[in-house]
Amino acid sequence: MSVVAAAGFKAAGVSAGIKASGALDLAVVAAAHPVAASGIFTRNRSAAAPVLLSRHHLRDHQAQAVVLNSGCANAGTGAAGEAAALATAQKAAEELACGTSDVLVASTGPIGPRLPIENIVEALPDAIEALSSEAGTRAAEAIMTTDTVSKEAVVEGSGYVVGGMAKGAAMVRPDMATMLAVVTTDAAVSWQALEAILRRVGDSTFNCLNIDGCPSTNDAVVLLASGESGVRPDLDEFEQLLRHICLDLTLQMARDGEMTERVITLNVRGALNDAIAREIGRTMTDSDLVRSSFYGGDPNWGRLLAAAGAGAFPVNPRTVSVSYSGVEVARNSVQVEYDRPALLAVLSEGDFTVNVDVGTGEGQATIYACDLTPGYVTFNAEPS
Amino acid sequence: MSVVAAAGFKAAGVSAGIKASGALDLAVVAAAHPVAASGIFTRNRSAAAPVLLSRHHLRDHQAQAVVLNSGCANAGTGAAGEAAALATAQKAAEELACGTSDVLVASTGPIGPRLPIENIVEALPDAIEALSSEAGTRAAEAIMTTDTVSKEAVVEGSGYVVGGMAKGAAMVRPDMATMLAVVTTDAAVSWQALEAILRRVGDSTFNCLNIDGCPSTNDAVVLLASGESGVRPDLDEFEQLLRHICLDLTLQMARDGEMTERVITLNVRGALNDAIAREIGRTMTDSDLVRSSFYGGDPNWGRLLAAAGAGAFPVNPRTVSVSYSGVEVARNSVQVEYDRPALLAVLSEGDFTVNVDVGTGEGQATIYACDLTPGYVTFNAEPS
Repeated sequence: MSVVAAAGFKAAGVSAGIKASGALDLAVVAAAHPVAASGIFTRNRSAAAPVLLSRHHLRDHQAQAVVLNSGCANAGTGAAGEAAALATAQKAAEELACGTSDVLVASTGPIGPRLPIENIVEALPDAIEALSSEAGTRAAEAIMTTDTVSKEAVVEGSGYVVGGMAKGAAMVRPDMATMLAVVTTDAAVSWQALEAILRRVGDSTFNCLNIDGCPSTNDAVVLLASGESGVRPDLDEFEQLLRHICLDLTLQMARDGEMTERVITLNVRGALNDAIAREIGRTMTDSDLVRSSFYGGDPNWGRLLAAAGAGAFPVNPRTVSVSYSGVEVARNSVQVEYDRPALLAVLSEGDFTVNVDVGTGEGQATIYACDLTPGYVTFNAEPS
Repeated sequence: MSVVAAAGFKAAGVSAGIKASGALDLAVVAAAHPVAASGIFTRNRSAAAPVLLSRHHLRDHQAQAVVLNSGCANAGTGAAGEAAALATAQKAAEELACGTSDVLVASTGPIGPRLPIENIVEALPDAIEALSSEAGTRAAEAIMTTDTVSKEAVVEGSGYVVGGMAKGAAMVRPDMATMLAVVTTDAAVSWQALEAILRRVGDSTFNCLNIDGCPSTNDAVVLLASGESGVRPDLDEFEQLLRHICLDLTLQMARDGEMTERVITLNVRGALNDAIAREIGRTMTDSDLVRSSFYGGDPNWGRLLAAAGAGAFPVNPRTVSVSYSGVEVARNSVQVEYDRPALLAVLSEGDFTVNVDVGTGEGQATIYACDLTPGYVTFNAEPS
């Protein structure tokens, strides 16, 4: 039941007519009063208007509601787009009888078109009227774009609950967060703890997803803690549960990558530190040649070596060892003997794991990547 | 007639059996004695053994010969690969009766497999025996990998000649140079002038080519000046001619991009300086979503905006204007009215030009990019 599983949160998903199809396209997640909140947003310099506004509204570390729309990213829309994001927050605040700065907004869809703010203003009263503790799935559906399935996750802690929803299928190479996600909990956690924990968890989950190497203008993850369970959780447990939820949502997005066929788990070890390990893994999975070889089930470690060397981080080109599905194919940057027909047979069967040890330190990271498919190209070539 | 057009240079292309097909795979370009030389090489940290050796051999700014093989990149080959590169230079030096450090080596092909040095050592005497001023095309053919055509260019200056050959069809996103190119001239030019001019010319030609966003381990451009014409050229004219040759070879590679269907000329203007303009253009054409839209003939400027914002350079997200084939689609980062059906019709027809003005300064660059096609993915998914 995703974002409504935690006590103190309701949600709604309605059709505001932003999508021509008439599908659900406006979601609201709301608490009964302002609660502790934290967010991580895209680092893209072309950040969309809702990202700019939500960042601003989170300065006081609290929020009562998040309004999310699909069908339009409200990016590349200039001053009119900023006014539309603000009008969305104002209208929701009016209906919820809270301050405008207690409303966060998020948008996803094509970049460029104007946000049809009239539709949103008209639909918001109905959406807020429809808020219920049953509508978590409808909210998750209302933020879908090219996603083929809605993405939700829930976990129970010691007397409290953490749940969330997310969307994302392309233009997903998060650099702070992923396309859109809202996570709620009824644990009582200070904003300071939320902030620190969300940052750590986001770095090892959403920020380790790479569907297509294209960082988005609209990435936003919001975490809300109502405290309604009355439980002040053990923060280590809370962080572990939050990581569980965020990783679950991350993997759901990876599995739903646009027209992709495989999820590749790339474990990078032996980097100078964890951040460098993550950058090495991201750079490798940015490469079209690497992702084409994933599609073909080809243990083409030379392309990983070439990609690693092209990045803006320190890599020793002589100490890279690589294995595919547990079979070592290169040691210290030199190919080793292995049973190639047997490995090709294994790799022909869906998802697989690649382990890369760069041999220079203790840093590690796991990247969740997709293969590059002809279908992805055809799908994204279509003028909208 | 490429590299043999300039007086003082001979070339050869033979089959050494490196390629299983028996096609030409070993080329030699040689002068009669050591001549002024300059080179630019990949910045990839995983640079191949021949790149490391040639960089070393160019420390004295002279060379007599370049030995190039296709069929194997001699990258990811460790100490054995370094020994093989050196053995190649030693054998050629022995046959040419010159110093080992006067021989440059270059390799291209798959990364990982061991260079069959016995084949090269055995074939080198025949290749050097076959050196002639007629064999420019055979040499250009002997460096082809997935190239479908050989790439040569010649231009005449005031009493001297500049000519060159190149290869490159994938893993081409040069960061100093392109896959392989050798340019020769019989003008008398000091190594200091060669160095400065080649760097400037390389930056605006080879380094502005982006076939697939994947920087290679083996990029190398070598420029040799025999002085045999007796002409000390006007350096401005020489630079202009060298740019002509390098741009010609660059465009030949763009047109031969693996399974690509279009060459897109992306003009970036209004950046803080030319280097930033080049980085903006490269980052835009790295994007799979941008290159998929090129394939579809879709004027999807929002993807250009998103890509620009994701880079590690200063871009003002409010001042980006974009036109496709002369039709403005966005001004100051906001979509404008345009005749979309008419523009889609124009873009459906092959190559086109995209102009991006980022509105912050006077810097400019032109990037030559390819579309991303389903065929590219299928081609590169095939286990070799």
